[in-house]
Amino acid sequence: MTDPTVEDLLERVREGEVRLHELDDHVDAETAATVRRRLVADRSGADLDVVGEYAFDAAAADPNIDNMIGGVQVPLGVAGPVAVDGGAFEGDRFLPMATTEGALVASVNRGCSVVDAAGGATARVTKRGMTRAPVFRVADVAEAEALVEWVRDNEPALRAAAESTTSHGELLDVTPYVVGNNVYLRFRFDTKDAMGMNMVTIATGEACDTLEAETDAELVALSGNLCSDKKPAAVNAVEGRGRSVTADVEIPREVVEARLHTTPEAIAEINTRKNHVGSAKAGSLGFNAHVANAVAAMFLATGQDAAQVVEGSNAITTAEATADGDLYVSVSIASLEVGTVGGGTKLPTQAAGLDVLGIRGGGDPAGSNADALAEAIAVGALAGELSLLAALGSRHLASAHADLGR
Amino acid sequence: MTDPTVEDLLERVREGEVRLHELDDHVDAETAATVRRRLVADRSGADLDVVGEYAFDAAAADPNIDNMIGGVQVPLGVAGPVAVDGGAFEGDRFLPMATTEGALVASVNRGCSVVDAAGGATARVTKRGMTRAPVFRVADVAEAEALVEWVRDNEPALRAAAESTTSHGELLDVTPYVVGNNVYLRFRFDTKDAMGMNMVTIATGEACDTLEAETDAELVALSGNLCSDKKPAAVNAVEGRGRSVTADVEIPREVVEARLHTTPEAIAEINTRKNHVGSAKAGSLGFNAHVANAVAAMFLATGQDAAQVVEGSNAITTAEATADGDLYVSVSIASLEVGTVGGGTKLPTQAAGLDVLGIRGGGDPAGSNADALAEAIAVGALAGELSLLAALGSRHLASAHADLGR
Amino acid sequence: MTDPTVEDLLERVREGEVRLHELDDHVDAETAATVRRRLVADRSGADLDVVGEYAFDAAAADPNIDNMIGGVQVPLGVAGPVAVDGGAFEGDRFLPMATTEGALVASVNRGCSVVDAAGGATARVTKRGMTRAPVFRVADVAEAEALVEWVRDNEPALRAAAESTTSHGELLDVTPYVVGNNVYLRFRFDTKDAMGMNMVTIATGEACDTLEAETDAELVALSGNLCSDKKPAAVNAVEGRGRSVTADVEIPREVVEARLHTTPEAIAEINTRKNHVGSAKAGSLGFNAHVANAVAAMFLATGQDAAQVVEGSNAITTAEATADGDLYVSVSIASLEVGTVGGGTKLPTQAAGLDVLGIRGGGDPAGSNADALAEAIAVGALAGELSLLAALGSRHLASAHADLGR
Amino acid sequence: MTDPTVEDLLERVREGEVRLHELDDHVDAETAATVRRRLVADRSGADLDVVGEYAFDAAAADPNIDNMIGGVQVPLGVAGPVAVDGGAFEGDRFLPMATTEGALVASVNRGCSVVDAAGGATARVTKRGMTRAPVFRVADVAEAEALVEWVRDNEPALRAAAESTTSHGELLDVTPYVVGNNVYLRFRFDTKDAMGMNMVTIATGEACDTLEAETDAELVALSGNLCSDKKPAAVNAVEGRGRSVTADVEIPREVVEARLHTTPEAIAEINTRKNHVGSAKAGSLGFNAHVANAVAAMFLATGQDAAQVVEGSNAITTAEATADGDLYVSVSIASLEVGTVGGGTKLPTQAAGLDVLGIRGGGDPAGSNADALAEAIAVGALAGELSLLAALGSRHLASAHADLGR
Repeated sequence: MTDPTVEDLLERVREGEVRLHELDDHVDAETAATVRRRLVADRSGADLDVVGEYAFDAAAADPNIDNMIGGVQVPLGVAGPVAVDGGAFEGDRFLPMATTEGALVASVNRGCSVVDAAGGATARVTKRGMTRAPVFRVADVAEAEALVEWVRDNEPALRAAAESTTSHGELLDVTPYVVGNNVYLRFRFDTKDAMGMNMVTIATGEACDTLEAETDAELVALSGNLCSDKKPAAVNAVEGRGRSVTADVEIPREVVEARLHTTPEAIAEINTRKNHVGSAKAGSLGFNAHVANAVAAMFLATGQDAAQVVEGSNAITTAEATADGDLYVSVSIASLEVGTVGGGTKLPTQAAGLDVLGIRGGGDPAGSNADALAEAIAVGALAGELSLLAALGSRHLASAHADLGR
Repeated sequence: MTDPTVEDLLERVREGEVRLHELDDHVDAETAATVRRRLVADRSGADLDVVGEYAFDAAAADPNIDNMIGGVQVPLGVAGPVAVDGGAFEGDRFLPMATTEGALVASVNRGCSVVDAAGGATARVTKRGMTRAPVFRVADVAEAEALVEWVRDNEPALRAAAESTTSHGELLDVTPYVVGNNVYLRFRFDTKDAMGMNMVTIATGEACDTLEAETDAELVALSGNLCSDKKPAAVNAVEGRGRSVTADVEIPREVVEARLHTTPEAIAEINTRKNHVGSAKAGSLGFNAHVANAVAAMFLATGQDAAQVVEGSNAITTAEATADGDLYVSVSIASLEVGTVGGGTKLPTQAAGLDVLGIRGGGDPAGSNADALAEAIAVGALAGELSLLAALGSRHLASAHADLGR
Repeated sequence: MTDPTVEDLLERVREGEVRLHELDDHVDAETAATVRRRLVADRSGADLDVVGEYAFDAAAADPNIDNMIGGVQVPLGVAGPVAVDGGAFEGDRFLPMATTEGALVASVNRGCSVVDAAGGATARVTKRGMTRAPVFRVADVAEAEALVEWVRDNEPALRAAAESTTSHGELLDVTPYVVGNNVYLRFRFDTKDAMGMNMVTIATGEACDTLEAETDAELVALSGNLCSDKKPAAVNAVEGRGRSVTADVEIPREVVEARLHTTPEAIAEINTRKNHVGSAKAGSLGFNAHVANAVAAMFLATGQDAAQVVEGSNAITTAEATADGDLYVSVSIASLEVGTVGGGTKLPTQAAGLDVLGIRGGGDPAGSNADALAEAIAVGALAGELSLLAALGSRHLASAHADLGR
Repeated sequence: MTDPTVEDLLERVREGEVRLHELDDHVDAETAATVRRRLVADRSGADLDVVGEYAFDAAAADPNIDNMIGGVQVPLGVAGPVAVDGGAFEGDRFLPMATTEGALVASVNRGCSVVDAAGGATARVTKRGMTRAPVFRVADVAEAEALVEWVRDNEPALRAAAESTTSHGELLDVTPYVVGNNVYLRFRFDTKDAMGMNMVTIATGEACDTLEAETDAELVALSGNLCSDKKPAAVNAVEGRGRSVTADVEIPREVVEARLHTTPEAIAEINTRKNHVGSAKAGSLGFNAHVANAVAAMFLATGQDAAQVVEGSNAITTAEATADGDLYVSVSIASLEVGTVGGGTKLPTQAAGLDVLGIRGGGDPAGSNADALAEAIAVGALAGELSLLAALGSRHLASAHADLGR
């Protein structure tokens, strides 16, 4: 702490000779972080020592953070193991969850144990595609119509431009939307095992250059919000973004009664009154109890982008008593943006989280690891929904019994 | 690692004598975590040592996690300092941000520097109230109408019941919503410096007991999704939840031109075409560029609930050239659920994050620290919006110049 | 047709001496309409004679139309009679419906007959209030906060101003919403038997004058779209506008089986998969099958504003098999804007439509006729939902039977 | 009125020998209507004579109404003429509007006159396609995935089945959506000059038969609400239904100042604060002032389905001051469901309405008349938006002037 380099740099920052974000030009990443931490501690009066006890390599974290002063530590637990029959995720797995909300992991764990007792969950990715939607300005709607026509006629050229920037990504399609003199083009890419936001931004940018060179349209913004990234938007809830994924399970009535102390009918009723009718009345895009909890905790545990929990909450839970009297429950997440390469996945604790699932890095075939991650999260969400609905159902039943005793 | 206790417990778990979540009954929290980590490592083949290098006290994390195996570490940076004239947040402050998305802190930092050059941001909490909305089943709409009437007539009794469970919380109002034979009651509380989800759940539960005892209505679920927690719902975007908070700034034209290399008019135009028209066409509840980024990063840095980033994305960004030719920009977040006591705020690195802001623990007056946190996050979001819009604007301007040169 | 006045005026309009909308200054309303009709017929080559065969008094229609050329005729049918136990609407009534969509009246009629066989429908208005929400510009969010405070402190003055303009309307409350430097104030009025849009616009305008005179806020628009009129908006779906009304019915299983050829369970399942899950996935504010059909047809038959069918589509249909195996169905329309005085209700055929329902003009107590109209429409919508769900259910059953026969 | 047939049938209906809807089996349509009208008049005490003064042929109205008792008459006016440069609608045209809302036609007329002074409006249909989305039940998500695959592989067979039912309609595409064990297939058709709801329902039904015959999926409902018909749904606002149509105009500053007594900047500001920010805060799918007014009035005047005004309100209005200081205004309606053949278009007064526009019946090429109708309505809506924004702007300017005089 009395490292002369640190003291010297602190002085120079205080004097205004060096700015905080320039420290990396003068010393290694770890020392730079130390200087900043000291400076922020001095200014704020905070004791930041614990923030300096991080277990990753500061230099290696460079693609993930700027003006680094240390690390934040979030407790990590596991739910499961749970059996999954997925399109890409198979076997009995623990689900890693990082959270500060007590009872969450316990709740998902309880759900996993019931899913397991029912023979495991089924999971499938039903749609894929990371999107970016630039907005262009044109003169009027006549030009807008012409631009839409041009895009339809020149999709091969746009694809060539876009794909020239990436060895992995593939342009799936381009969908135009016209609003007055604005034309939005929603580019959708297969980004394999990468979440792919950067990849599709660069690729779309190249396609925009081609378009601007050959038409009169002027690019206003590379993202025109029809993507839609990190906003709660119907376009994602309807059309999907990243992965659209469903997990479901059929639970024998006796398991519901013995393990959850309620009935399939009670769970179905609660799901309707709360998740369907209540959400409908709330003007919601999320027809579920707490899917975002599982999404957030598994995102943190596996190095995903925490801001994209927003889109991960676009989920619908269904529950029904089957013709045979058993319980069917499903969770469908429309727009889960996940990757097993890039972003925060290389940080050591997050890489370990992916290793717990057995899906770190690129999959074989390409994209299968990110599919598996989406399916794992959907199963975690399913377990969480089941557990919470059952808790409400058993209270319900208890209350019903109490009623009879009156 | 060859601790006999650990080895012995591992064996007993493998034999099925002890279950993972029962380990805490046998050994201290840290040892229990070690056993679980070992077991998960063995089962998955993952090397989880780094997950064990956490810097918090396992026993103290007990209210935050179950089935703990260790900790996840997220890089922490700072933006600022930035001058703020808030209702509760005052002075020149660094903003702590934990993220794995490169360039995010740098972007917010650039925005802070411009806000600072303009004399600082203004921020205000314009509405407060944490909500919980149970759903009750009644016989038909005639009974629903009667129940609504009963609630209006008995609000004092409901208040007394609810407030009997808490020394801090105050019931602000109860709003009924009827859908067929379902009655939803949206209880809204002032929870002071606590985010308050648990507090209002318990308090609402007590009020529900009163209601069930005195009417024929039957409680179906303590949350009927009109709250609405961790779902993207219009009820929150319109009516607010937690804090409704706005930050804004007026930036002289010369600062816009010199520092951001664009014009107020260009920024206003981009904001309209992207954040307003693009989001409108997307069917969005988020009329902003990337507010969720600042919300997520500051939530992680200060121990907030990461799943509530969902509601934090209900934000509207406005930008206009003023009559004097300057730039006015604002960010209004409708439903930011924050607290400076409870939840994850006691964990050491997260407490340090609050200390950087100078607002850890209960405020004076009560509630002022949570207000301040909301204002700090709004300022971070404002800086992020400004920076991103300016980047688009300068590209735009560059492109416009290039056009002239054709 | 060779009326010299008509020929002369036609010539003067063609010469540009008189403009179309000035004709009323020169001749009586009917002759003016004739001249316009002739002119439009000549210009377009259309034979418009049938448009001239209208059965209302042109002069009396003056508050309803400008540049009149005649009338459009829409076929009128009746469904019912149906028994209703409403808060304001009682007895066995025919429901008048004007439509051009074949099978609609038949479908509602079938539903009415089943509702009747089940002992009739229950209906209640659960919330009332016509809204208008002006938007004000302020300097920044600090001023916005101050304005919100001012409004809270000065609600009596605003009420006095507003109510000075009307002998019927009562200001119920004012709800403020802040977005950057915009403050929206949602004024909600009890407008009794009038739909009340004009009444509340004038009253709100007066309150705005008071506010502008005493604060620095500047009125930008008397409607800032948080009202929200004639747009599909969550604020109305959640908070209501005009009347929030529910109709419901419990139908014995034997009636469902004998008359509808299906089961309560089948109808509940279809309602879930279509009206709840399908609408959820569609990002809808309408969780029903075709409520807008009944709303539109009864609006046209009773002189309501056809553009407000938009808000009338904010409806949720629920269906469930009861514990006793019967069928419960409900329709809840959140924002039905209706009146029995003013607007189009004085036109002869529309007044006759209200007379069929027995609720023309002001009610006793005031407001009860408009309540009754809302309940009547909700019952019509309920009958329509039931009929359509049953048709799907019987097809379903037929198909299920066919399956067994394979 | 003492027609023995009428009296005799009245008696038989009263005796319960003949039911109201069976009257058509006994007498001609007009007499049946008379009997019903008498009966309803007797039961309700209403004088319904005026309802009997209809000017259409009762027998010919048979495809449009059931249980007919007469007709409702709505005043019809005209706005314009207005010059339009459309993809299908060309020249100087009057716009027919049927409404009971005073000042509406006058407002649109004023807007038309300014559009005309600016050289006319541009209009284009930018997307076409009427949709129907059945919902199927499958066993679980694994079967859902298989069904989606089957649909992709068998689109030709589905097309063949669908198109076998219609000589005009063409299946454009089928988009699958999976939610748990529900699969929704959104069929989109080119229905040429027909609005096409019936056509696509029949065609989709045939495709469903093929699908059910060859897979294990079971059809639950021919409409699963992802169509989405007569509900305010994001899927339509985003992806369009019927016609997506835009009308726009550029108005010289001097025209704005001289004719509208305001400035391009004032109109742009009001549009932002009201139509963009206000609607955003309202959780709206309608970012406009009163587009539904023009849609409803022109729907009634041309025999469209009044309940589809709902989807016609999914519209975005933009307004901006151009680089040259002029005013650009646009209206984009996402889902306008219109036809010039079938439905109510054959009724005499409605056919006359289409004749005023010069677009009755099938167009050449097929579809061009319905395109033209969409463009005409968009121009009417544009004129209405312009007029209302200008009225607010001139008040604004007046108020600004008054401010200066203080």
